[in-house]
Amino acid sequence: MTTNATTSFQPVLDRIAEEIAELTDRGTPADYIPALAAGDPTDFGMAVAELDGTVYGVGDWRRPFSTQSVTKVFTLALALAGEGDALWAHVGREPSGDPFNSLVQLEYENGIPRNPFINAGALVVTDRLHRLTGDASGSLLGFLRAESGNPDLAFDTDVAASEAAHGDRNAALAHFMASYGNITGPVPDLLREYFRQCSLEASCADLALATGFLARHGLRADGSRLLTRSQAKQVNAVMLTCGTYDAAGDFAYRVGLPGKSGVGGAVVAVVPGRCTLCVWSPGLDDRGNSVAGVTALDRFTTITGLSVF
Amino acid sequence: MTTNATTSFQPVLDRIAEEIAELTDRGTPADYIPALAAGDPTDFGMAVAELDGTVYGVGDWRRPFSTQSVTKVFTLALALAGEGDALWAHVGREPSGDPFNSLVQLEYENGIPRNPFINAGALVVTDRLHRLTGDASGSLLGFLRAESGNPDLAFDTDVAASEAAHGDRNAALAHFMASYGNITGPVPDLLREYFRQCSLEASCADLALATGFLARHGLRADGSRLLTRSQAKQVNAVMLTCGTYDAAGDFAYRVGLPGKSGVGGAVVAVVPGRCTLCVWSPGLDDRGNSVAGVTALDRFTTITGLSVF
Amino acid sequence: MTTNATTSFQPVLDRIAEEIAELTDRGTPADYIPALAAGDPTDFGMAVAELDGTVYGVGDWRRPFSTQSVTKVFTLALALAGEGDALWAHVGREPSGDPFNSLVQLEYENGIPRNPFINAGALVVTDRLHRLTGDASGSLLGFLRAESGNPDLAFDTDVAASEAAHGDRNAALAHFMASYGNITGPVPDLLREYFRQCSLEASCADLALATGFLARHGLRADGSRLLTRSQAKQVNAVMLTCGTYDAAGDFAYRVGLPGKSGVGGAVVAVVPGRCTLCVWSPGLDDRGNSVAGVTALDRFTTITGLSVF
Amino acid sequence: MTTNATTSFQPVLDRIAEEIAELTDRGTPADYIPALAAGDPTDFGMAVAELDGTVYGVGDWRRPFSTQSVTKVFTLALALAGEGDALWAHVGREPSGDPFNSLVQLEYENGIPRNPFINAGALVVTDRLHRLTGDASGSLLGFLRAESGNPDLAFDTDVAASEAAHGDRNAALAHFMASYGNITGPVPDLLREYFRQCSLEASCADLALATGFLARHGLRADGSRLLTRSQAKQVNAVMLTCGTYDAAGDFAYRVGLPGKSGVGGAVVAVVPGRCTLCVWSPGLDDRGNSVAGVTALDRFTTITGLSVF
Repeated sequence: MTTNATTSFQPVLDRIAEEIAELTDRGTPADYIPALAAGDPTDFGMAVAELDGTVYGVGDWRRPFSTQSVTKVFTLALALAGEGDALWAHVGREPSGDPFNSLVQLEYENGIPRNPFINAGALVVTDRLHRLTGDASGSLLGFLRAESGNPDLAFDTDVAASEAAHGDRNAALAHFMASYGNITGPVPDLLREYFRQCSLEASCADLALATGFLARHGLRADGSRLLTRSQAKQVNAVMLTCGTYDAAGDFAYRVGLPGKSGVGGAVVAVVPGRCTLCVWSPGLDDRGNSVAGVTALDRFTTITGLSVF
Repeated sequence: MTTNATTSFQPVLDRIAEEIAELTDRGTPADYIPALAAGDPTDFGMAVAELDGTVYGVGDWRRPFSTQSVTKVFTLALALAGEGDALWAHVGREPSGDPFNSLVQLEYENGIPRNPFINAGALVVTDRLHRLTGDASGSLLGFLRAESGNPDLAFDTDVAASEAAHGDRNAALAHFMASYGNITGPVPDLLREYFRQCSLEASCADLALATGFLARHGLRADGSRLLTRSQAKQVNAVMLTCGTYDAAGDFAYRVGLPGKSGVGGAVVAVVPGRCTLCVWSPGLDDRGNSVAGVTALDRFTTITGLSVF
Repeated sequence: MTTNATTSFQPVLDRIAEEIAELTDRGTPADYIPALAAGDPTDFGMAVAELDGTVYGVGDWRRPFSTQSVTKVFTLALALAGEGDALWAHVGREPSGDPFNSLVQLEYENGIPRNPFINAGALVVTDRLHRLTGDASGSLLGFLRAESGNPDLAFDTDVAASEAAHGDRNAALAHFMASYGNITGPVPDLLREYFRQCSLEASCADLALATGFLARHGLRADGSRLLTRSQAKQVNAVMLTCGTYDAAGDFAYRVGLPGKSGVGGAVVAVVPGRCTLCVWSPGLDDRGNSVAGVTALDRFTTITGLSVF
Repeated sequence: MTTNATTSFQPVLDRIAEEIAELTDRGTPADYIPALAAGDPTDFGMAVAELDGTVYGVGDWRRPFSTQSVTKVFTLALALAGEGDALWAHVGREPSGDPFNSLVQLEYENGIPRNPFINAGALVVTDRLHRLTGDASGSLLGFLRAESGNPDLAFDTDVAASEAAHGDRNAALAHFMASYGNITGPVPDLLREYFRQCSLEASCADLALATGFLARHGLRADGSRLLTRSQAKQVNAVMLTCGTYDAAGDFAYRVGLPGKSGVGGAVVAVVPGRCTLCVWSPGLDDRGNSVAGVTALDRFTTITGLSVF
């Protein structure tokens, strides 16, 4: 299904990799858990997947890493597919203007998180999906294995345990929303599901392929429909306005594509109707986005003109 | 230059106008100044301008109205053209997550407004443009007359006086930013310029044409360059993430185009590389955007598929 | 030890009780747990204890009720006695200007609660006392039995369980502060201790006597020293500026005494060097203070002139 | 009227002055206007006035300095005397928990400042007094001359002009409240009155005498009544809970008296029924209160036991 043959995107990726190799300031890995703190900012991988599943890559594009918040895209898509617009009664779709783990906004808006990509919103979405399926992290894993064509995708239990050990802030968010009635299940169960999802290991190739349904207007790799065309548009819109923590405006301005980043150093991006991308490099800027990753995407849209703007 | 001949967009506009005629809940006009409070929510006009200046329209598409915050797009473009990236030291480009005239964010971020489309940001941009040109509102008027091909465009001095009489909140914003050194000129002069800009009268046809440079990647109607391709992309990105007050996420989700609204009931939108739109209807929703206007744009992108997502 | 003999305070109490009987708007009992929601706003009791333990009372002054946040005074005193000024590294002593269970302030001040009487602050104080003694609620109970001379004082396990079942907001506060390293023990243990303390049942007579050390400049009922003179002054100062939720200024203005209220309807107050008071009536105002209770204290200071101002 | 004879308070003042002379860290003068920035932190003066007008002093106790926010006490008293409880519809009496010139609180509470001693509140009180008298600063000056017995008290027009030149933050506050209808007169007039009041020059002796009405339960120096006993208590309560910026709790805890500080380095304090104090030293701590001034008051209450707690 995947190939590295010399076709249209390969020269672009090669050129970007050369440019990124010159990059001197590559940021700092996340340090709140040991598994991430050990990341090497000089590592770099990038993959582009076409609508038919053809994948191009460069650097460490087949090497698994900790996906972290990138999985929030897939959890959102699965919950939206299962629950439809009723989901939006529990989580908003506006940018937050606050740090990703802020409680202030929640307090002013009665426990309804501003969007599905801040931690509070992702907790709510996980709670909804768990309620729908009885197994949120299992549903996520099954979906990602199917879309990437990689049956070896798995959670990293050490990372999940490490997240849980540093999970007081997320526990606070969950209990706080529960106090407003916006969490349905027991908080400890929810946190376990949430931290498992964050711990998923996958490669740039895996994530570029798995994101394909957003470029195919809702169709999965096997041609079946996960989301309506309108819902796929909705997820892309939320990614563009809220996908990169408190730097969504800057990302839209520089990259101009729907995207979602994670503190493991990955960023996925969507060119609707054309292709999907995943780039990975563990060094982060002060807003939690991969320095080399955002730079590579910026170069990609500049070179190819494939921005939505 | 303009025509109403039966070409591609006319049937779409006619269909949308029919649908909008059925709309029962059309919102409420802004009521903070008499000129706006007199607006009739059943009024409706819509225009589409192609890259070459061909314009299609329906309803009151040639009738002038108070453009209000829609002019912030043009002021931003002129300031960015004149000052370049140095502009971004004085105003951010992130969504605010707060109401359009909030002072809270300013206090936490030392007088730097989050983006050019909240009132504080527009005051800063006007101050920069006034500093560059010595005549911010004159520059704006000249640009809009040239792009729209309408030499009769003018400010409404009654509206400007009315805005000034209700201008304590904007005066507070300007003095507050001045206390941080982020306003260079005298506050009373700045306010006069600002309120003049808000008072511009123009029609859907005028505004659709005047927005054309954003669909032409920075080129003006006469083919000369106002913005670099990258700067045009930047303005579109800021419109998409910040152009509709505290409903930017919702607008991206429903319409999926860069857009900017005003409390006079107008909304402009850009389909990069293809066309620009302006719709007008005075009834607003509770976040200050035209109810019929957003609905019409939503229908337009759904019918034509011309969303960026 | 106690007496109801006809001495100086009895006529004042009798007069106040008569006036309170005329009070028509008596507020509404707290309704977040069933045990409190069942309260009757027409119930009323008041007691005054002189420095030597002489007690005067009127109404239901010997009837036990749920003391709730009134116990925060005693927990603070015990923690301050045990830890000294080092306590103030973990909790501030400034009024909060926010609701008693707000998370906003915590976020802006890095997990250090503004004072010991908002819920977050009381959780920290309980955590410190539990760390010092290994049994925070046991220490509290022992102290209160000794000072009141009432060996039957006890926690109400139903109320404690009910509090725990509605405890998500407090769990959020505790986890949030733990994320800043400002909680030393396991959060579930802390919550159990905290909810037990809230559930203490005591009467006006019990609480007036137990508060006596604050009027005796730090000396316990048996003459031994709990707090230094300076520490007793500190606790009184914190009560005056922070003891009645978001109405401390209003309480100082009307009553003019250090005081502490609880949502069970009790309020204790201190006339340094002279006497202590406890009043109880379950109807609360919209800021959580007993309507009849504050009115009775207001009348007491007006009639006797025993305000600190 | 005043005397320096050897009576009860003189030895205490002498002892305090000796201790203060040893103080090494004396803070930093306010630097936002030149007149204050030139202050010398080693300057120190202190005065105590008894109820009958007997004054004791030490150090620079007769030297005039810029009174700044200390005048807010007198403006409040005059407005309360003129308008009665209706004043409290325009300004609250709760501690703010925010910096003295914050706009955040105003926004959440619809333009009603939390108390009369934050800048927003003092602007409102000045507006009310100006409305009542037609000459707010003239009323203030007349009152202070009468109470101090010093006909030479005057405003410093250079300081007032300097304040106005750095007055954008206060202009923002005034316009912001005007946008909520909580300022009745033209903002420029209000600002002129406000800055004049801040510029008053007076000595420790002058201010200790002028504050006497608060220790005399509302009676002026000539025995006439300015405030009811209840109103005097109200002003004292507001001073205790709100008089020292964001350090009111700390001041209550250390000093235990109603007090009001100014960035010129003065602090006045009241021992109800006994005496009033004024201390001055220009070095401020990071919350804007005189370091030597608060230390001296702390020593005074510790040595004399004259705290309200």
